[in-house]
Amino acid sequence: MASERDNNSSKAFPMKGGQGQDSYAQNSNHQRTGANITKDIIKEAILEKLDLETLLQNSSNNVFRIADLGCSVGPNTFFTVQNIIDSVNLKLQSEEHGLDSSLEFQVFFNDHAGNDFNTLLKSLPEDKQYYAAAVPGSFHGRLFPESSIHVFNSSYALHWLSKVPQDIVDKNSPAYNKGKIYFTSEDKKVIEAYSAQFESDIESVLNSRALELVPGGIVTFLIPSIPPNSKNRFEANANIIGNVLVDMVNKGLIGEELVDSFNIPMYMPGSEEVKELIEKNGKFIIEKSELLLRLFNEQLPDVRSACMHMRAVWEGVFKEHFGQDLVDDIFNRYEKKLAESIFLLDPSFKTLGQLFVLKRT
Amino acid sequence: MASERDNNSSKAFPMKGGQGQDSYAQNSNHQRTGANITKDIIKEAILEKLDLETLLQNSSNNVFRIADLGCSVGPNTFFTVQNIIDSVNLKLQSEEHGLDSSLEFQVFFNDHAGNDFNTLLKSLPEDKQYYAAAVPGSFHGRLFPESSIHVFNSSYALHWLSKVPQDIVDKNSPAYNKGKIYFTSEDKKVIEAYSAQFESDIESVLNSRALELVPGGIVTFLIPSIPPNSKNRFEANANIIGNVLVDMVNKGLIGEELVDSFNIPMYMPGSEEVKELIEKNGKFIIEKSELLLRLFNEQLPDVRSACMHMRAVWEGVFKEHFGQDLVDDIFNRYEKKLAESIFLLDPSFKTLGQLFVLKRT
Repeated sequence: MASERDNNSSKAFPMKGGQGQDSYAQNSNHQRTGANITKDIIKEAILEKLDLETLLQNSSNNVFRIADLGCSVGPNTFFTVQNIIDSVNLKLQSEEHGLDSSLEFQVFFNDHAGNDFNTLLKSLPEDKQYYAAAVPGSFHGRLFPESSIHVFNSSYALHWLSKVPQDIVDKNSPAYNKGKIYFTSEDKKVIEAYSAQFESDIESVLNSRALELVPGGIVTFLIPSIPPNSKNRFEANANIIGNVLVDMVNKGLIGEELVDSFNIPMYMPGSEEVKELIEKNGKFIIEKSELLLRLFNEQLPDVRSACMHMRAVWEGVFKEHFGQDLVDDIFNRYEKKLAESIFLLDPSFKTLGQLFVLKRT
Repeated sequence: MASERDNNSSKAFPMKGGQGQDSYAQNSNHQRTGANITKDIIKEAILEKLDLETLLQNSSNNVFRIADLGCSVGPNTFFTVQNIIDSVNLKLQSEEHGLDSSLEFQVFFNDHAGNDFNTLLKSLPEDKQYYAAAVPGSFHGRLFPESSIHVFNSSYALHWLSKVPQDIVDKNSPAYNKGKIYFTSEDKKVIEAYSAQFESDIESVLNSRALELVPGGIVTFLIPSIPPNSKNRFEANANIIGNVLVDMVNKGLIGEELVDSFNIPMYMPGSEEVKELIEKNGKFIIEKSELLLRLFNEQLPDVRSACMHMRAVWEGVFKEHFGQDLVDDIFNRYEKKLAESIFLLDPSFKTLGQLFVLKRT
C-alpha cells in the first residue's frame, strides 16, 4: 500500500481555529453563501448522476462513506455533508430497485494535521445521523484506502497550493517574485509558475481520488476562479497586503528578505483552466460544471468584514512566516489600506464560483 | 441507523493534552509498560484467533480496519496499533489460502470529543503504513457502522465509567458517599453502586462492538483489576486525594458541598468480575484471558512520578468539577500526602492487568 508520507511534503496552512470573534468558524459567511447556492446543484447531481445500484453492489454492507476535503473547522462542512446525506436518502427512497433502504453513513472530515480538529469535533451537530471521523493530511496525497469513498466533496479548498512555486522564490529564476506576494497580469513568468504548480496539484488530487472512489461514486467540488477579461478581486486583495509589507520594509519594521521570500500559496485559476486540467488528467468525466457568478456579486462587503474574512483565511500563512508578533500589525495596516481602496465598490472586480461534478471514466 | 446521540450522555474526562511536562503523553510510561507486556499476547492472539479468510471474504476490498478505543493523545496507541498491523501482516504471509497479500490498513483513533485530538493527529508516526482517522465519542455508544471494524483494541480505558453512579451523589440514597471521592472495602453500598454502573457500561461497550465488528474479527482489551485478598493501590491513591479534599474543606479552602458532590468516575473491578460480565452479556466468547501480575509490581514508583502520573490521568476530572484554580493546590497537597504515605513501598498493594481476547459468538 502507499505510504502517506507524501502528504507530509505538502505545506499546511490551517484556517484560524477556535470559535472566537476572529476565527474562521465565525468569518466564513462567504463560504456559507457558496454552500447555500451549491446545495441544489449537488442535490440534483446526486439524484441524477449517483449510481446507487453499482455503488452498493460493490459494498459488503450498507455503509455509505462521504469525505469532505479541506473541511476547516466548520460549520459549513456540516451543512454540505447533511445536504449530501439528505440527497442520497431522497434518491434511495425514490428508486425502486429493491435496495435495503437503511443505509448507514460515515463521514470523514479532512484537512491538514494542523487544522483545529478539536474545535471541529466538539462542534459536530448533536442530532447528526452519521458516524464522524477526522482525517488529517493533504488532499494532494492519498488519504483513504482504495475504493472506499462514495462521495467526495471539496468547497473552497482546491485553490490552496501544496506549496509556493519554487521558481518564484529562487533569486536566479526569471520568475523570481521580488517585492510582491502574489502577481498582477503583467507578471507573466510568475503567473506561469503559479499555474504550473496548480496544474501539478490538481493532477495529484484527481489521481488520488480516482483510486479512493468506489465505482459509481462522484466527486463534487467548488473552486473560485476568475472570468475572462474581468478584474480580479483576489489579486487586488493580495496586492494590497503585499503593499502593506513593502511599506513595512521601507519603515524598517520587517526585513526585506523576509518579504521577498513570502508568497501566497493560493492560485485563482481562470474559468476555463480547471476544466482543461480535468480533461487533460483523463481519469474523470465532467458530469456537470456550473459557473456561479452571483456567488460573489450580490452584495459588496464592508471593509471590516472583508478584512476579518481575509484574516481568518490568511492568518495561518502569515503567522508561520512572519511570526505572531507581526500579524496584528500587518492586518491592522491592511484594513486601513483596504478602506482607502476603491475596488470593494467597483463591480467590475469579479470572482466566480465554479462547481464541478465528476465521475470516474 | 442509530443516532450517535447516546454518546453525548456519556461524560468525558480527557487525559491532560499537549506535549508538556505534565501532559499525559509524557506521563503514561505505566501504560506503555502495559503495551509492551501485552504486545506478544496480542500478536499471538491475532496469529491464532483471527479468521482472516472469513474476514476478507466479507470485505469488498482489501481494507483492514482497526479501532483503538480510548486512545488518548498517544504515543502508546501508535505502538499498539503498529503491533496489530505487524501481526496481521505476519499472519497473512504465513498462510497459504491465496489471499491477496496487499492489505491496506485504516486505523481509527477513538476517544471523547474533549480529547486533545490536535496533539494526537500532529504526532502520528511519519512512516506509518496506514490511513489514520480520529473518531470522537464515547465507546459506551455506537461509533462505527455495522460490520466495519476487523480488530478493536482498548488499553486502560474500560475502567472509566460513563458517569458517576447516580446513587452515590444522592443525599437520600443509602449509597450516598459523603466526604469521600471513592470507597474503601467497608463501603458496601457505594461499592454496589459503582459495580452496577460498571456492569451497565461494559454491557453497552460489548453490545456496540458486537454490531460493529466484522464476522471473524476480534476484540482485545487490557483493563486494570484487583486480585482477591490484596490491598488496592488505586483505592489507596483515591482515598489519599479524598483526604486532601476533606482537609481543604476543614481549612475553608473548598466548600463541603463541592467535595460531597465529587466522585471519581473510575472503577477497578475484581479480577473475576470482568470475565463474569462478558459471559453474562453472551455476545462474545473469551478466546484468551491473561492476568498480568508483573505489570504493576516490577518496580515501585517514586513519589514524584506517581503524582505526575495520577495528575495526568485525573486532572481533567478535577478541573471540570473544582475549576483550574484549585487544581494546582489539590495536586501539590496530594504529592505531600503521598510522600507521607507508606503504601508506595508496601508490596502487598497490587493491581493486576487483565488482557482479554474476544470473538463474536
